[in-house]
Amino acid sequence: MIDPESFRVRSDGFRLDRIDPAGNGGIDKEEAKARVAERNARLEVLQELLWADGRHRVLLVLQAMDTGGKDSTIRRVFDGVDPSGVKVAGFKRPTETELAHDYLWRVHPHVPADGEIVIFNRSHYEDVLVVRVHGLVPEERWRRRYHHIREFERMLADEGTTIVKVFLHISEDEQRERLQARVDDPAKRWKFAAGDLAERTRWNEYQAAFEEAIQETSTDWAPWYVVPANRKWYRDLVVLELLVQTLERLELRYPPAADGIEDGFVVE
Amino acid sequence: MIDPESFRVRSDGFRLDRIDPAGNGGIDKEEAKARVAERNARLEVLQELLWADGRHRVLLVLQAMDTGGKDSTIRRVFDGVDPSGVKVAGFKRPTETELAHDYLWRVHPHVPADGEIVIFNRSHYEDVLVVRVHGLVPEERWRRRYHHIREFERMLADEGTTIVKVFLHISEDEQRERLQARVDDPAKRWKFAAGDLAERTRWNEYQAAFEEAIQETSTDWAPWYVVPANRKWYRDLVVLELLVQTLERLELRYPPAADGIEDGFVVE
Repeated sequence: MIDPESFRVRSDGFRLDRIDPAGNGGIDKEEAKARVAERNARLEVLQELLWADGRHRVLLVLQAMDTGGKDSTIRRVFDGVDPSGVKVAGFKRPTETELAHDYLWRVHPHVPADGEIVIFNRSHYEDVLVVRVHGLVPEERWRRRYHHIREFERMLADEGTTIVKVFLHISEDEQRERLQARVDDPAKRWKFAAGDLAERTRWNEYQAAFEEAIQETSTDWAPWYVVPANRKWYRDLVVLELLVQTLERLELRYPPAADGIEDGFVVE
Repeated sequence: MIDPESFRVRSDGFRLDRIDPAGNGGIDKEEAKARVAERNARLEVLQELLWADGRHRVLLVLQAMDTGGKDSTIRRVFDGVDPSGVKVAGFKRPTETELAHDYLWRVHPHVPADGEIVIFNRSHYEDVLVVRVHGLVPEERWRRRYHHIREFERMLADEGTTIVKVFLHISEDEQRERLQARVDDPAKRWKFAAGDLAERTRWNEYQAAFEEAIQETSTDWAPWYVVPANRKWYRDLVVLELLVQTLERLELRYPPAADGIEDGFVVE
């Protein structure tokens, strides 16, 4: 079926525009949806096992252009998964207090504990993306951050966190349609911000910023995966396959039963 | 007078046992005390200026053997300094929640904001000191932390934090006397823990751990200073000179007056 590793960013010559946002891996929608249901059930089991095992931490970083589908990916991929062991941390415009500290300061408190899955909806990568595109700090300053971020993630990984980073890749046309849908649908209109259109004029600058950030920070210990995301059902499937494969590799196991319980009976 | 830079750890061949814990730099107690009062007054002014300026962050890391004088150094050096802009963060035995995360997780939230001085009373260095001496994690794991710590401090420095790290260096005899004083003095007895004596038997192991940690992590952006600390008045003076010099170098300035205030008059 789908090999999630084929979406991994490996080489120095990474080019975002060589990846088709409309890709579907030769799978049709019905087939994908059936597989999504099956993989989602598996994720549910694996998450409980991760929690019971209690020796690993999993961090999923989600980034995308506006309307790229971060919120709906989280909702659909983790549908039915026990929210006790899964936390979502969203990072919007930083507060004044956050800006008075280094840019990793607001992120670090939210990294996963033993047994947890944490999803970053946006992340420290905004500090080399929006900050770069809007010139909020000088280039020499944001450019150093690639190194900081690699090292921050290396520390997390060394200390027991499995990190998976996903860029949901949509096309410019797809973004236009999704923005139009937000305007047209009363139930989605609240998500539409006037700033969205201004950001849209910077499409190429954002693509360049993403391309470089992904290339500079896709490491052995915290790889980036670029997932074609025009088709939501294909996007969901790829992210699920990636998460399930990542958790399967951890060789999770239930801890031994407590003393006093033998062969399934409580011993008194 | 005293050049704080002479206490800075620079070379690869750093040896802790070549530094005399009883050193006094040729200064006598009276002279030192007068100078301490004068430098303390200057620190008070500089801290207010740091706060008003609002563009810099200062982190002082204090480490020492047990009874090395961390608490009393903080009390005496910062005597009279406005506590609104100075925060002390102490790091004792980690909680269960802290242990479920990477070892920098509990430290990072306490780093200084713009305009602040933060003092770490113990710090992330415990994770290459007590953790090493007691074998709490395998060697290959704590050894990697030297690199993490260098990079964590580099990130803080790149983003605007001035870092000064001080090891208060006492002798084994001095420690014995101070422990005895804790036992003898009813007002100090509460500070005496039975574990202190057990730790004392590991004196050489701790010295070796400190020596290596200091050598591995004394960098251009976060230097270590080894301060002779048998004589409290000399220790206080050296730490004060170091802090004052560090703050003077920042070229702090008061921000311009608000609009409507000209030449010292409120303009209506």
